[in-house]
Amino acid sequence: MKKESGGDLNQPLVEMFRPCYKVWIERGSTDFGDGLYYLLMYVKEYGSISQAAREMGMSYRAAWGKIKKIEKNWGLKLVETQVGGDAGGGAKLTEAGAELLESFGHFRQKIEEAVERVFRESFAK
Amino acid sequence: MKKESGGDLNQPLVEMFRPCYKVWIERGSTDFGDGLYYLLMYVKEYGSISQAAREMGMSYRAAWGKIKKIEKNWGLKLVETQVGGDAGGGAKLTEAGAELLESFGHFRQKIEEAVERVFRESFAK
Repeated sequence: MKKESGGDLNQPLVEMFRPCYKVWIERGSTDFGDGLYYLLMYVKEYGSISQAAREMGMSYRAAWGKIKKIEKNWGLKLVETQVGGDAGGGAKLTEAGAELLESFGHFRQKIEEAVERVFRESFAK
Repeated sequence: MKKESGGDLNQPLVEMFRPCYKVWIERGSTDFGDGLYYLLMYVKEYGSISQAAREMGMSYRAAWGKIKKIEKNWGLKLVETQVGGDAGGGAKLTEAGAELLESFGHFRQKIEEAVERVFRESFAK
């Protein structure tokens, strides 16, 4: 590549940089992004908010608060808790929670793929 | 839609939410995102860092510092300044700066389109 005063690329841009992205969805002033996405994913996987919180490195109180806040602001129940039983209760996603988890997971995955593809298209000459 | 305890969607998800995104590129610990993108765009448009800074609601010093920091960290000159002349000097993008602006603009635009499209695909049932 020719050397030019004040502007030189020794490497193609596509090799110089790493593309990054973040996606989330908003309703009113409350958003749902990776944090809640993983939290709901773990609730679904473990059937327990406390186990989900541990996986996220959060306190139970913080995880519970995060879920309650969005449920209240959106008027939409995402997690159902059962009290008692053999395991001392548990939690599972509501239909709405499961649908949100699945839709957001699809959205996130497809955008991740698009970011890689579009980055290469945009920065390769 | 059927009413169910603990989980009800009165509206399709696609109508409840607004998709949001942010993209940037990284090299080492220095990133290039919308702030620098618009700053370079205005430098190109106005041929002046001070005018570009005004458009961004930034001080000249802040705009200049932002450009210098990335140039230093990346070892890549993005803006060339001319001293003197009728207009008391001016600034223009280097070849590398122009290429970065164009590539990032394309990347950003295509991801914005993908976000809208993929959101509808993911959240519409």
